[in-house]
Amino acid sequence: MERLTLDTVYDAKNVLSKIARTTSLTHSNFLSKKNNVYLKSENLQLTGSFKLRGAYYKISKLSDPEKEKGVIACSAGNHAQGVALAAKEKGIKATIFMPLTAPISKVEATRSYGAEIKLIDGVYDDAYKAAIEYQKETGATFIHPFDDNDVIAGQGTIALEIYEQLNEVDAIVVPIGGGGLVSGVAATIKQIKPTCKVYGVQASGADSMYESIKNKERTELKQVNTFADGTAVRLPGELTYNYCLDFVDEVVTVEEDEIASAVLTLIEKEKMISEGSGALPVAAVMFNKIPLEGKNVVCLVSGGNIDVNILSRVINKALIKTGRISYLTIELLDKPGQLRDVSTIIANHGANVIRVRHNQGGKGTAINECYLNIVIETRNFEHFTTIINALKEAGYTNITTKE
Amino acid sequence: MERLTLDTVYDAKNVLSKIARTTSLTHSNFLSKKNNVYLKSENLQLTGSFKLRGAYYKISKLSDPEKEKGVIACSAGNHAQGVALAAKEKGIKATIFMPLTAPISKVEATRSYGAEIKLIDGVYDDAYKAAIEYQKETGATFIHPFDDNDVIAGQGTIALEIYEQLNEVDAIVVPIGGGGLVSGVAATIKQIKPTCKVYGVQASGADSMYESIKNKERTELKQVNTFADGTAVRLPGELTYNYCLDFVDEVVTVEEDEIASAVLTLIEKEKMISEGSGALPVAAVMFNKIPLEGKNVVCLVSGGNIDVNILSRVINKALIKTGRISYLTIELLDKPGQLRDVSTIIANHGANVIRVRHNQGGKGTAINECYLNIVIETRNFEHFTTIINALKEAGYTNITTKE
Repeated sequence: MERLTLDTVYDAKNVLSKIARTTSLTHSNFLSKKNNVYLKSENLQLTGSFKLRGAYYKISKLSDPEKEKGVIACSAGNHAQGVALAAKEKGIKATIFMPLTAPISKVEATRSYGAEIKLIDGVYDDAYKAAIEYQKETGATFIHPFDDNDVIAGQGTIALEIYEQLNEVDAIVVPIGGGGLVSGVAATIKQIKPTCKVYGVQASGADSMYESIKNKERTELKQVNTFADGTAVRLPGELTYNYCLDFVDEVVTVEEDEIASAVLTLIEKEKMISEGSGALPVAAVMFNKIPLEGKNVVCLVSGGNIDVNILSRVINKALIKTGRISYLTIELLDKPGQLRDVSTIIANHGANVIRVRHNQGGKGTAINECYLNIVIETRNFEHFTTIINALKEAGYTNITTKE
Repeated sequence: MERLTLDTVYDAKNVLSKIARTTSLTHSNFLSKKNNVYLKSENLQLTGSFKLRGAYYKISKLSDPEKEKGVIACSAGNHAQGVALAAKEKGIKATIFMPLTAPISKVEATRSYGAEIKLIDGVYDDAYKAAIEYQKETGATFIHPFDDNDVIAGQGTIALEIYEQLNEVDAIVVPIGGGGLVSGVAATIKQIKPTCKVYGVQASGADSMYESIKNKERTELKQVNTFADGTAVRLPGELTYNYCLDFVDEVVTVEEDEIASAVLTLIEKEKMISEGSGALPVAAVMFNKIPLEGKNVVCLVSGGNIDVNILSRVINKALIKTGRISYLTIELLDKPGQLRDVSTIIANHGANVIRVRHNQGGKGTAINECYLNIVIETRNFEHFTTIINALKEAGYTNITTKE
């Protein structure tokens, strides 16, 4: 297997200096516990993710006859936007295949960079087939999203930037989907500073690299299930699998609600939008999946392209997970004044009522039974428990606390 | 009136170099039409807003006996957090008065910087009275949120940064609440580069500075009504009113749904969380309130402390306002297969159905009448109209399109 050399990464950096942003590296007070945690903000990269780097470098290396024939990509996400903008900047025709089910916001964003969009009936695999067919017909170059040394070299430029911004870096935590990003970053940083650890993070519902390393062979998942759609890849690349074996210290996984909490933390504490995949490293740090005490840690926030409808749901999930929104159902006797009494107890404990529904004689209730469904905003689980106890002391003994 | 000198602003810059971040200035491709629009990200400042600058500089100028007695502030928002962190960094006691109705997230954030919080029953004015009383008892220094030349000098350091980052700046667009931020920025930039325009922006529901300038005297509003709570000030300062008269070229207002659209744009296009007040300049640019063609324009995104519950509502409002979520009610004949037919028409036009409710024989309907309430995700209003027309052509003539 042909290996990435530092020369190539420096060449990519030089080529990318014309277009890509040098994204900021920011210290996070909130995330730093017994260490220093920094965020490398590739969500603030043009197109909203790091993908522009690899795509642009790859396209810049095409020969003139190849450029003439244009490029093709198959993606419903960040790779599509990266290829579209890179092609536009190079004055090359880009044709992007997407499944018909792709979110409108992503289709529109890709179209806005001037690419021709082919919406294919079906799922990703159908779009992929159509792309390959089109490639055969037209001779255009298919830009692989991750398993390509030029693409990997482009992503590797992020490691050069991190090292320039923080010489003292001890560990870099990187999301893994197909593995292109982590391959570039790990292969590069280990050649510059071999003592720097590189950790990969996957959603537990899409842990193909984690499984592959455990099984000591590339392992295809039957299905992937995560809202971190940017890393929902069923089979790692061949190149990227080998880079991971050689350069990545450990791959860990995080759960969906941990990812949601990380997205919310980035919003509230860092005023930053991250997509699920982009928040994987922060989730790993927040939920102690990696030994990082005393280290200078860089979390690579790889992208921010999250559909706003999904964002709303993620926020809600995270508020529940962290005890900031709580649901309770209280059985009342159907007599006046009890709504007021309950409200008073909640208010006296400094919680806010967000929604309330008064259910009188529903299905399966006796004629004089009555329930209050209340949604309250609380500080944390402890605060919520205090309120429950106060309600019980006041005689409201039948309380359930599920949504 | 004692005027801000450049010397003082440079002194503030020097003092602040120990703590404040030099926030990034980023070009926005999306917002740049026939001009270049840049975002100055004070939402990424420590404490999530610019307020740290003025508070820290003010506190640094206190005498030792004053420091001994501590500081007081009254605020449910950014000023509270700015004073709390500034005092902590200086090793000074801070007591922050807040109305009991303050959002939990803001109370907790302020407490996390080590300030003592006094939650006062009632609204802002009640908290203010309690703060003044406490000030008399203790002799602690009351830190005014805006009408103070040291506070204004601290905010003025932003103009120095902007000028360093973009010498060619032609216009700076700034949110106005009490007027401290715009006073500092305008007084500073006009002394460095007198040709640079400064525009102030207020929510039309809290336009006290706009009214004051129009009326040629400080005008107190009877009430304020905006979700941009950081700028919901009923009466401008005396100092700040005069700075605006002298240095601000024009003050304009924006509507609530324009502010919501700006917040959503910053999320989707710039991956940035802005609170309502922070998005006022972007709203003014997006909705052409200011003549900016051919200019290098800086929008000052002043803060990012938005309550996530409000954020969810803002996102939804903005999606409706921009035609990205649409509501329609379709009258059907109550016979089989019509839900399928309607769904097919919508899908064929590339829109996604988010929610659907099938209403059979509701109040005020004939026994055989039946309605579909559908919420769909569309590209824009044009797209929505196309779908409505297609439905009408297919025989569904009775369609209403309100929420």
